[in-house]
Formats: sequence, C-alpha cells, structure tokens
Amino acid sequence: MHISYSNLHIFKELAMNKVMITLASIGILLTSGSALSDPAPMYKPGETASPAMAAPAMTGPIDRAKILTAPGVFGAFSTYMIRPDYYKLSAAERKGAAAEVMAVVDKHKEKVIVDAYLTRGYEAKSDYFLRVHAYDAAAAQAFLVDFRATRFGMYSDVTEALVGITKALNYISKGKSPDLNKGLSGATYTGDAPRFAFMIPVKKSADWWNLPEEERLRNMEIHTVPTLAYLVNVKRKLYHSTGLDDTDFITYFETNDLAAFNNLLLSLAMVPENKYHVRWGNPTVMGTIQPFADVVNKLSMGH
Amino acid sequence: MHISYSNLHIFKELAMNKVMITLASIGILLTSGSALSDPAPMYKPGETASPAMAAPAMTGPIDRAKILTAPGVFGAFSTYMIRPDYYKLSAAERKGAAAEVMAVVDKHKEKVIVDAYLTRGYEAKSDYFLRVHAYDAAAAQAFLVDFRATRFGMYSDVTEALVGITKALNYISKGKSPDLNKGLSGATYTGDAPRFAFMIPVKKSADWWNLPEEERLRNMEIHTVPTLAYLVNVKRKLYHSTGLDDTDFITYFETNDLAAFNNLLLSLAMVPENKYHVRWGNPTVMGTIQPFADVVNKLSMGH
Amino acid sequence: MHISYSNLHIFKELAMNKVMITLASIGILLTSGSALSDPAPMYKPGETASPAMAAPAMTGPIDRAKILTAPGVFGAFSTYMIRPDYYKLSAAERKGAAAEVMAVVDKHKEKVIVDAYLTRGYEAKSDYFLRVHAYDAAAAQAFLVDFRATRFGMYSDVTEALVGITKALNYISKGKSPDLNKGLSGATYTGDAPRFAFMIPVKKSADWWNLPEEERLRNMEIHTVPTLAYLVNVKRKLYHSTGLDDTDFITYFETNDLAAFNNLLLSLAMVPENKYHVRWGNPTVMGTIQPFADVVNKLSMGH
Amino acid sequence: MHISYSNLHIFKELAMNKVMITLASIGILLTSGSALSDPAPMYKPGETASPAMAAPAMTGPIDRAKILTAPGVFGAFSTYMIRPDYYKLSAAERKGAAAEVMAVVDKHKEKVIVDAYLTRGYEAKSDYFLRVHAYDAAAAQAFLVDFRATRFGMYSDVTEALVGITKALNYISKGKSPDLNKGLSGATYTGDAPRFAFMIPVKKSADWWNLPEEERLRNMEIHTVPTLAYLVNVKRKLYHSTGLDDTDFITYFETNDLAAFNNLLLSLAMVPENKYHVRWGNPTVMGTIQPFADVVNKLSMGH
Amino acid sequence: MHISYSNLHIFKELAMNKVMITLASIGILLTSGSALSDPAPMYKPGETASPAMAAPAMTGPIDRAKILTAPGVFGAFSTYMIRPDYYKLSAAERKGAAAEVMAVVDKHKEKVIVDAYLTRGYEAKSDYFLRVHAYDAAAAQAFLVDFRATRFGMYSDVTEALVGITKALNYISKGKSPDLNKGLSGATYTGDAPRFAFMIPVKKSADWWNLPEEERLRNMEIHTVPTLAYLVNVKRKLYHSTGLDDTDFITYFETNDLAAFNNLLLSLAMVPENKYHVRWGNPTVMGTIQPFADVVNKLSMGH
Repeated sequence: MHISYSNLHIFKELAMNKVMITLASIGILLTSGSALSDPAPMYKPGETASPAMAAPAMTGPIDRAKILTAPGVFGAFSTYMIRPDYYKLSAAERKGAAAEVMAVVDKHKEKVIVDAYLTRGYEAKSDYFLRVHAYDAAAAQAFLVDFRATRFGMYSDVTEALVGITKALNYISKGKSPDLNKGLSGATYTGDAPRFAFMIPVKKSADWWNLPEEERLRNMEIHTVPTLAYLVNVKRKLYHSTGLDDTDFITYFETNDLAAFNNLLLSLAMVPENKYHVRWGNPTVMGTIQPFADVVNKLSMGH
Repeated sequence: MHISYSNLHIFKELAMNKVMITLASIGILLTSGSALSDPAPMYKPGETASPAMAAPAMTGPIDRAKILTAPGVFGAFSTYMIRPDYYKLSAAERKGAAAEVMAVVDKHKEKVIVDAYLTRGYEAKSDYFLRVHAYDAAAAQAFLVDFRATRFGMYSDVTEALVGITKALNYISKGKSPDLNKGLSGATYTGDAPRFAFMIPVKKSADWWNLPEEERLRNMEIHTVPTLAYLVNVKRKLYHSTGLDDTDFITYFETNDLAAFNNLLLSLAMVPENKYHVRWGNPTVMGTIQPFADVVNKLSMGH
Repeated sequence: MHISYSNLHIFKELAMNKVMITLASIGILLTSGSALSDPAPMYKPGETASPAMAAPAMTGPIDRAKILTAPGVFGAFSTYMIRPDYYKLSAAERKGAAAEVMAVVDKHKEKVIVDAYLTRGYEAKSDYFLRVHAYDAAAAQAFLVDFRATRFGMYSDVTEALVGITKALNYISKGKSPDLNKGLSGATYTGDAPRFAFMIPVKKSADWWNLPEEERLRNMEIHTVPTLAYLVNVKRKLYHSTGLDDTDFITYFETNDLAAFNNLLLSLAMVPENKYHVRWGNPTVMGTIQPFADVVNKLSMGH
Repeated sequence: MHISYSNLHIFKELAMNKVMITLASIGILLTSGSALSDPAPMYKPGETASPAMAAPAMTGPIDRAKILTAPGVFGAFSTYMIRPDYYKLSAAERKGAAAEVMAVVDKHKEKVIVDAYLTRGYEAKSDYFLRVHAYDAAAAQAFLVDFRATRFGMYSDVTEALVGITKALNYISKGKSPDLNKGLSGATYTGDAPRFAFMIPVKKSADWWNLPEEERLRNMEIHTVPTLAYLVNVKRKLYHSTGLDDTDFITYFETNDLAAFNNLLLSLAMVPENKYHVRWGNPTVMGTIQPFADVVNKLSMGH
Repeated sequence: MHISYSNLHIFKELAMNKVMITLASIGILLTSGSALSDPAPMYKPGETASPAMAAPAMTGPIDRAKILTAPGVFGAFSTYMIRPDYYKLSAAERKGAAAEVMAVVDKHKEKVIVDAYLTRGYEAKSDYFLRVHAYDAAAAQAFLVDFRATRFGMYSDVTEALVGITKALNYISKGKSPDLNKGLSGATYTGDAPRFAFMIPVKKSADWWNLPEEERLRNMEIHTVPTLAYLVNVKRKLYHSTGLDDTDFITYFETNDLAAFNNLLLSLAMVPENKYHVRWGNPTVMGTIQPFADVVNKLSMGH
C-alpha cells in the first residue's frame, strides 16, 4: 500500500502537532513496578502491534510473573453481585460452589490467570470482582463464559465489565523524561503484603487528547512527581482501553496502607491533569485480596 | 407544490451557509470498504430518498454482499441479557433453543440477514448482540418480534436498541476530497479473519451541526488522515440514525487486532472533531463474531 | 382585584421585554396540518384558557378528525414493556387479552381516543406505546387506569409517561410570519399511508426562554424553512407540556419514508435553535402504526 | 455567648453581603395563600428555630387549616408504585386494603394529616403519592412506617421521597417588597375546586446562593410579577428542604385549569431566576386529588 | 466566648506553587467536637500514615468515646432496602431477626462499633443505614459480611456504600487559623439529645484541588464562620474518602433541630466553596437515631 499525502495541502494551515501525533506515543505513568525498566517497543499503525500476540503456544500454566509485566496483555475486569435466591439453595449445594469454580480456573490455566477480590461491605454494586489476564482476549471471554455456567457464576449478576490492554511506558520513558524515569525505577514496594486492591477507571476529555504531545508529557511529569513517594507503599498497574470499553484507562492498585493510598489519590487530584478527567472512578471499586475459593466460600455463607 | 421564498428578507441578515445547507450533504468517513467506490446518489428533500426502497421484490434469500454495501439499507442493532431463570429450565429444554432460533432466521431470510455476537465476559449489560439488515425497517421489526417469541428470545431482556440507515459517502467523496478518497479506496483489509466486533454509537453536539459544511468537511478530513493506516486491519461500517433513535451514528467495526483497534480509536480521540462528541460509546459494545447458533448454544450452557 | 404596579420602579432598569412577555405568545412551528388554518384564540392569564374545556357534553364517540386538530386537547403518551411472566400464562389466557383491552377502549370511547404503536425490535425500553387524546386530562387518566386493570395492562410496566396540551400556532402565525405561514398551509402530505410513528420529547434551556420573543420567533422561522420541503412526506403534531411533566414539548411524527425523516431531523439539528435544547429525545420512540388489537396480539405470541 | 466580628478586617475585602447574610432571610415567593398575611417570625441561628416545635401537646385530631398555613411544619412527600404481585392476591384480599390503610391514618390523626393523589396514567415512576404534614418530622416517619406495614403499603415500592419544612414569606415580605406583597395577598383562588395537584422539586446552583441577598430579592420580584395573575386559578405551597434531601425546595400546586398551570410554569421559565436552576422537576409529579381510600380502591382493581 | 479574628494575616499571602503542595495539609472544618483539641499528627508520604494502624491489640469491647474521636479510624457507611419477600416470611421468623443481628454485633464488638438509623419514610432508596467504625478497614468488612449472612441482612439490598478515614483537623488548626480554631473548640452541643442523623457525601472539582493551599484555607475559613453559631445544636463528623470511593468526603451530622440544620446547610450553600462542589448529597440520607435492634424490629413489622 502506498498513500501519498503530498497533495493534502489543506492540512498545512492546521496545527500539525495535533494531526501528526505519533500514534505509538500513548501511555501514562502508572504501570507495574517491574515493567518500569522494560524498554518500550515502538508500534507502527498497520502492524500487529502487540508482541504478545506472537507469543509461543502455551503448553503449561501461564507464568504469572511474566504475564503481569508484559505489554500486549489483556486484562478483563468484571464486578459481580450475588442474587438473593442463591441463599435459598441448600447450604449443601452452596458448599460445593468453590470447588466447581476452581475446576473452571484449572481448566483454563494454560490460557488465563484469575485474581479475585471480596468487595461486599465496601461496595453497593458488587460483592466481588475478578481480574483475568490473557494473551488473547478471546481466551479471557472463554473463561468468563465457563465461569458464568457454574452454579456460583449463574447466581452472579455482572455489574461492571471493562477490558484493557497493557503497553510499555510511554510518557515517562528513559528518553523523554530520564530523571523521573529513574525515580520510578529507583523505588520498590517495601510495605506489608497488600490486603486491599482498587480498580478505578479513567476517561479523559477531548481537550486532553487534543493537547500537543509535549503538553501531555509535561502534565504527566507533574502528575508523576508527587506519586514517587508512594512507590514504597502502593503498587500500581495500568491497562489501556480506549475503544475497547467506555473508558480510556483502567488503573489498578494494591496496598496495605489505606491512609497512604488516600493521600496518593489526593495528590493526583491536585495536579492540572485532573482537570481533563471526564471519568475518574464511577465506580471506584475497593476489595480485599483473597484466594478465589475464599471469596466464593465467604459469599456462600448464611442459612 | 410551489413555495416562494422571495419575501423571506428576514433571512438575509443571517449566516446563509447555516440556513442553506444542502440536506443531502450529510455523511461521514466511516463506511464499508466496498461501498467506497459507489457513486453517491444525491437525494432531494421531498423525494423518496432511498433507492433501496424501490428494490425489486425479493424472491430468494437476501444477497449478503449486496445488502452490506448498498445505501438506503436499515441496520437494527440490539443487545440482550439472558434472564437468570433461563437456567432453571431443564438442560433438554435449553438444548432445543438454537434450532428454534435458526428456524426463525430461516423464515425471514428473504427479508433480513442477521449477525450475532457473543458479548458475555466483555460487557456488563449484555450477553450477546444482534445486527439485522433489511431493505425495509418493518421487516427488521417483524424478524425481531418473531425472535422474541422463541424460548431463547423470551428469556432475553433487550438492553439497548438502535436503528440506522446506510448512506453513500458524503464528506470524503471523489468530488470534495479526491486525495483522501483515493486513500480510502486504495487500501483493503489484509489481516486475519476478524474475531472481534464493536458497536459504538456517536452523537454530535448542536455546535457541530451548526458549523458551515466546509468546516465539517475539513474536520472529517483531519479525522480521516490517521485512520487510513488502519484500513488494513480494522473494517468499518457506518449507519446514520439522527431522529431514528437517541444517537446520530452507529459505528461498527470488525478486527482481529485489538491493539491496532485501540490505537485507531486513540487517533480519533486526538482530532478536533472529538470536541463535538456528546456521545461516543455509552455503550461501547465488544463481542466475538460467532454463528448465531453458537451464540445461543454457549449461552445455554450450565446445569 | 386591583394590583398597582406603579411603585415597582425597580423593574424599570430591567429588560422589560423579558418581564412583560405576553403569556399567550407561546408556541412553536410543529402542529398538525389541519390545525394550521385555524385562527389562534388568544388566552389571557387568569381566564380558563382552553376553549375545549367548555366543549359541549359528549353523547357519542369522540370525533377523531376534530379532536386531532383542536387546541386545548390533552395528549397522554405512555410507553410500556411486557413483563416476562406474561409469557408464562397459557396461550389461551393470552388469546383473550386483545378483546379485553378493546372492551375498555369501547367503554371510554365518548371521552378518549386511543392510538397504539408497536415498538418491540426498535426500542430497548418499550414494546409498545399509547397516545390518548381527551378534552379532559382526568378522562385520559380514567382510561389508562382501567387499561392497567386488564390482564394485558397488568403485565405491562410503564417506562415513560408524558402529558401535553395542544395550542394554536403561535410563532409562525399569519400575523407574525405570513410567508412561512403560507408555506406551512400550502403543502400537504402526499406520501403513502405512514407506517412509522415517532415520539420525541423536547426541553429547552433557561437561555432560550429568556430570549426576547422576537429572537425566539426569528429562531423558529429559521427552524421552519428547511422543514417546509418535508411537509409532503412527514406529518407532525405538537403538544405543550411545560410544568405538566419534565419536558417542554412532545413532538409526534408519522411517515412512510424513514430516509426523509432522518433528513428532516438532521435539518433541525443544523439550525441555531438546536443549541438551546437540553432534551431532544431521551427517549426517541420509534414504532409502527397498528390497530391496538394487533399490537396486543403480536405481543401475546410465544409458547 | 458573645462573638465580636469587629476585627474581621480580612473579610472587608470580600463581598460582605455574601458572608453576612442573615440566615433567617431565606424564602421564596410561593406559599399558601393564607400564610401570606402571617407575620414572619425571625429565627436566629443557635436558637430552636421553629415555633411549631414548641406547639402544645395535641389532644385531638390535627387542625387541618392551621397546620397547612403555619411555618415550621414538616411536609413529607413520597411517591409509590404498586408491585405487580399485588394483583396476584385474591380480589377479596385487595378489597380490605383501603380499610386497613384508613385505620392507620386514624391511628396517627393527632400527629399527622395525610393527603393522597392518584398518578397512574400520568407518571411512569409512580401510581400514587402522599403528602404528610406533621409538627414533628419523627411523627411523619412513624406514620409512614406504619403505612408500609399495611398490605397495600407492603406491595408499594417507594420511588421518591422528599422532606421539607415550611417558613414564613421572606423575599416578598411587607417590609422588603410592599407592592408585590400586597399583590400576593390581594388575590385569592376563585376557580373550581382543584382536581389536579403537582409536586415539583427545585434546586438552585451555587451561583444563586452566592448572589448578594439584594440580587436574589430582585430576581424573586421579577419571578413574582407574572405569577400574580395566576393566583386566581392555581394554588401554591412551598417547603424548604436544603440539607434535608437532595433539593432546595419542594413546590406544590393545585389547580383545575391545566392550561393556566402550563402558562404559569412557562412564565417562570422566562425569568432570569430560571438560569440558576440545577433541578426543576425530575420528577415533576402530576396527580389527581382524591380521598386516600379512593386511591387505594382504584389501584386495587383488576382480576 | 470571645473570638478575635484580628490576626488572620495569613490570608494576605498567596504562594502559588500548585505542584509542591504538602500532601499532609488536607482537611476540612467538620469533625467531632472532641477531636478538635487533639494535636494533628503530621504524616509524610511513604510512611504508614495512621497512628491507629499501630493501635495495641484489642482485648475487650472497643472504647466508643475513643474511636469516635481518634484520627486514622475507618468509617464504613452503608444504606439498605428490605426486599419485599422478607414480609412473606412468617411473623415468627421475622421476630428472631433482631436477636440474630445483635449476636453478630456482639461477636465483632472487639473490632468494630455499629450505629443504626431508620430512614424509611424519609428516603426512597433506603429503609435504614449503618455506620461502622473500626481501626482496621478489613474488620469493618468482616462485620458487614457476617451481617449480610443473617436473615435480616440477607433480605436487605445494599443501595449505597462509602468508606472514609478520619484525620486530624487541617485547615482550621491552631497554627493556621488560631481564632477560628478557638471558635470551634469554644462551643459545644447544648441541645436536646439528637434524634436525627444525616449522611451527606461531598466531592470537589479539579479546580478546587488545584487551588493553592492558601486559597483553600481561606475558603474553608469563610465556610467556617457561619457554621460556628450551629455548634450548639448540630453535631458534625468528617471522613476523608478520596480514592476509597467515588466521593472526597463523607459528612455526618446529628441534631434535634431540623430547622437549624436546614439553616446551617443553607449557610454552607452561600459561601464560594459551594461553587467547587461536584457532588453534595446524592444521596442526602436522613434517618432517626435508634438502637440497632429497634431498627430491625420496626422494619420487621407487618403481617
């Protein structure tokens, strides 16, 4: 394919920095700690962008450490409420729910990894949420369809579902923002094992996306400065979701220090980037990190 | 009918380009690939606008390739959730669901074509969605009413419904924007068979519609440039729906490369046209492309 | 009653045209064709405004042509969804539904006329909608309460309800806008019998209502010009509802040419008046025009 | 307690009229006719504000005329929908519903008065609404809790609930706006017994509440002028609810002339005060005024 | 009490650095009276912020007075509606509900304290709400999960859930605003035992959070002045929740004087800070303060 732009003189009057944005230059500070030192592979439009798409066929369980740090990985988040009639099943029927669910997790273990979180007590619109990682988005769906066919899944109503994809660091890269990049890679989480997780969707305004890339970089640098101090007690991971659902990013956090987390989010409220948010939360989902079987068991209690 | 405007001197003070907009000059870049080379028939208000309305009586199954590229075709999109009590039917009763649905599809095959998509796992407000094409909007309704009378349809709640009509390319036509028009027709999809589809409604502000046509054209040209590179890995089709439902357009995409799709949508976020969106998504519906019977069967699983 | 305004000097600084608006001067272009030639009776605040209120006692069925063109008539619109358990009634029980409904229509035929529309397939939040006209709003309620007590009504959930009142043409009257008035009365519907109807609520901003009347008139004239060409293929009727429900107007359309209707609504999007809309649709309700018994029967299908 | 503000020089730079607002000076035109001649008791912050709180212990039924005109009275508005399974009770069971409800009304008659309105046919989100007046807000709750324990109440879902308190006229008082005050007290309702009632919540923007009191007074005067003419055919009553629920005011109207009511509300749309509304309606609730037992009986029909 | 404002010279300075805001300097006027004299511990990002986290292991019931005044305490608010089928249980089954609930409260009494409020009659979306305090947010969840497993909890739908954390006074501290700080600590509640409680979420705009700290302090001082007079009849407590849920603050009030409360909230509407609210209420939840067992019993009535 050859496309000549040479006659598109009309565009010459326009602010070229808005039109000629390098499409690969999209990202944001938040990402998992270990991904921070990865060099960002540059994608070109028209190519298959994700190196993960070309990952070798899996022949055993997915490598958790690897999938959690690779770019091009899909993250499917879904929140659920148990329907009241679940508790009209006999206690015996509910007792078997966790084993049935774990069998489905096991069946898909070569294609997906699944994390579960208990939200009951913290949230009005969910009792638990799932985070599913897969190299192929269709594999995530296959697992979730099977999960919904279990008794526990069948008595669960989905109340939110978001799909995102991981990417390498963009704005705060070695090349563009070397000092802050050093700051990001120079600190690691030293707190207690996190007991709490948060899922917070982020959508930015048309004004944000129409800023020249330099201004977005600058905003992300200002956004980054106050967050450095929290690398030691709040873990973060970012998923990109523009077009995949009704948000631009899914931000995910783990911490054992909720006061620090509250302060981190306040510091993010106090930077100019916040003025470009059209969605930040809605929902903010807070849960405790628990083995999936425990989540199922705790929600299966009651006579 | 003769209407003399000669005494409407009051309008002379007004910006005539806003008032005298040629009504036929409404369109947008996105459309199916094969429609791109069709010359756009010009409609005049007061005439029956759609050549498809005058289509010869159908005597056999609808020609899929033809209806998918013709202007004046109706597209009825609807998303569905299965009600929980469906899973209280015996497995035997659910087993027959697909056959019953396919019989209805067969009954209407001279009037409509139907595409089905599995959304469970990706969406909170739907388990599947349907795209129905017909030359007559009443035929689309007749099919959907019959579908809802099947067991599977009866246990489905409609969660979104949109109706649109296809039109020939307008802004980026051979006459108005020859270079970009060449770009659009010069590239075709070369990726793997798409496994994923998206339905994204678009509504534009009063400020957009009140722009002079030249400015809208210019905006659509800027919108078009970054999308050319994605013709090879993302297919697109556009339906116009102002007045037919609460949106102006229904945009539909097919791809096998979700990272490329994410980048395409980011590039559309970065052009000034985005500032005129009052709805872009809400919902963004992501599904896997599957035979209708498979969708029914997969959603009929579970003991 | 004597009210002296003489000391209200405070108002002298204010734009009197905003304060002293003649209350009767409220209206809008859209109205049924036959109403266009009716002279507009002028109401004064403090009087019983509607001549229809003084209509002679009815001793036979309502005159359809008359009530559809008179000012001071109430229009009650309501949309409905059938609850799923309706389909758990035996087919025999559902078979009698239409007759029971028609008996209620007959019982009220001296007080109301009822139109029914099938929306299933086009709408997510309704299966059908009703338009009830009455000279007395209480009579419309009496019918609707009786209708809800039928089996079919009992299994229907109301999803939207709007009440409006018809008024004589105001802005585009013979006196104020003679040429456009001539245009409106000079063309009549010549298309095929309409198969489709639309109900679209309209609410305008405080900025609109605070414009001087001349500017609102001017806006309505600009609004009117592009609509003249569609008199031949789209019928229109307007109901005023400020204070009666959460919208200012209920606009109602009938057509057999959906492409023309789409173009008409686009032309209304392109005039400055559109900038004053705070609600235009939400919902836009599209249905097929059908005898009430047919609507009931079609929605009673299914085993 | 002695608070000296004399050294607050810092505030001298500020718009003092914003800071020094006399808290008692809050009110609005709308109020019941008979309350208009009552002198407004002045409350000071820090005192028990409502003289009604100090009302003598009731030993008989509440005096309707008195409670409807006194300041410091609580009005609890609540809208209800009947759940469908009510109609699965036998007709005999439903027959007793009205008597059971009226017994509860009688039980509480020394503490509350209750008005009922039929909204079915006019509203999508309610079948009826209640207006309960009490000198003590806890007494209103006690009645409503008992009502919900009746069969009819048990099958009713609450769809909106608002609590407000009556206050003496503030802006358009004898002292501040003598001519308009005379206008308000000089006209009384002369129409037929009202058959229709409306409940319309009103919330004003931060910009409104930050206006200097003089500007709010001036706005309320402009608001008042066009409403005077409707005193003869529309009755009005106002409840203040800032902080008690998610609105600032509950406006209540009774009329037998819906066209006049529509024109009154249009006139209120046309004054600058309308620009400060962030909620006006949502819902607008229209009902017919009926004895409570009739409302129960009409909604208990159906086989 | 004598309050001199003469030294409020702090307002004369306006340092502009938005980026370098001290993260610890976040707070707001509202807090419980007894907390006011506590010195505010200063947190630094990167440390475990809450001294309460390091509280000694509890070996007996929680000290109510202490937990209600300490910083670093979690408050979990949740509102509930009883599902209709609860009333289809036999009266005998419902009779035991309160005892079962109180047993759960007793089981957790070393980790949480629980307050209950009856909202039926005042609210459409709740029948009651709970306020749970704990030094560890996971303990609050553990209680709420157990509560939902009781019969009463099982028949309750959660309709809102918010989590916040208490902090020491920030803006109106001894150091920053000594006179107002004295005012806050110089007055205590002298009214009758409060019968009414309110829960009102507050979220502030990006513009607010991007103000220099001095301007936010100044706004909070202006906010504080009119509230001082209400310390005698309205109690207040504040929870910080940025990032923990979709609001920035949860404000909680107790009073026996609803007219005074209405005036207090009006005075807060009239200060410039109100212009920065993006959420203030939604919901405003009003309830009567009652022993938990009474709330359960009152909502278990009905045949």
